Amino acid sequence: MSDYGLRVLDPSECVAALESQRVGRVGLPVLDHPLVLPVVYALLDGDVVFRTAPGEKLIAAALQRAVAFEVDEYDVESRTGWSVNVIGTIEEIVDRDELARVRALDLPCWAGELRDRYVRVRTRAITGRAIESGERRAS
Amino acid sequence: MSDYGLRVLDPSECVAALESQRVGRVGLPVLDHPLVLPVVYALLDGDVVFRTAPGEKLIAAALQRAVAFEVDEYDVESRTGWSVNVIGTIEEIVDRDELARVRALDLPCWAGELRDRYVRVRTRAITGRAIESGERRAS
Repeated sequence: MSDYGLRVLDPSECVAALESQRVGRVGLPVLDHPLVLPVVYALLDGDVVFRTAPGEKLIAAALQRAVAFEVDEYDVESRTGWSVNVIGTIEEIVDRDELARVRALDLPCWAGELRDRYVRVRTRAITGRAIESGERRAS
Repeated sequence: MSDYGLRVLDPSECVAALESQRVGRVGLPVLDHPLVLPVVYALLDGDVVFRTAPGEKLIAAALQRAVAFEVDEYDVESRTGWSVNVIGTIEEIVDRDELARVRALDLPCWAGELRDRYVRVRTRAITGRAIESGERRAS
């Protein structure tokens, strides 16, 4: 499928893209606008999970808001790239067994201070698009 | 200022970060959830501008929704990185003089099909954060 010059990725391509990255971005609703925040993530049962500290992400999780989780790659030289969005509900992981499983993933904590809360994006839909040709048209 | 191990960037650092990149991501409200879409952008009078085709971004612009525009860089090895969010109202550029000015920026069109509509994010606020130490704590 093509969408204004973008190729729509099929579900298996979207999952492979998610598995290929370490850092993604969560798009959260915050008051009256969105906010896009990078996070180091892993996958648990196919869902995106990441560590966090008190703040916008944990508030969104407490409210079980619908969020987007995005990963992408691009190359400025060839003018190619792809992006994948996971749409789902963000929730804090509080179940003891689930916490043990997510801790076992050994997700690194880049920031100097401890992020000991874990959240999960319960996947509702995954979509992805790619620009592969790098074809250039004059306007 | 520090925010759980993240250094809060000052306004001039945020602007320099925006000027340093070519590709960013717009976080849009779409129906009942956000969506995060990469775009090739430039700056016009300090506002983020980009080309687009009919779709989610142009719908958000028609509705003058509040959006986030994000740029970031990170390094997995050193566990460092930064991100900047511009919060603002997305609008289609329709004024003839403004259209001439944005076209003169010669924004590249990566996708094979023509994107001849231009949108602008009218900046309301800019925020940024950085992880600079790469300090690692065991959990």
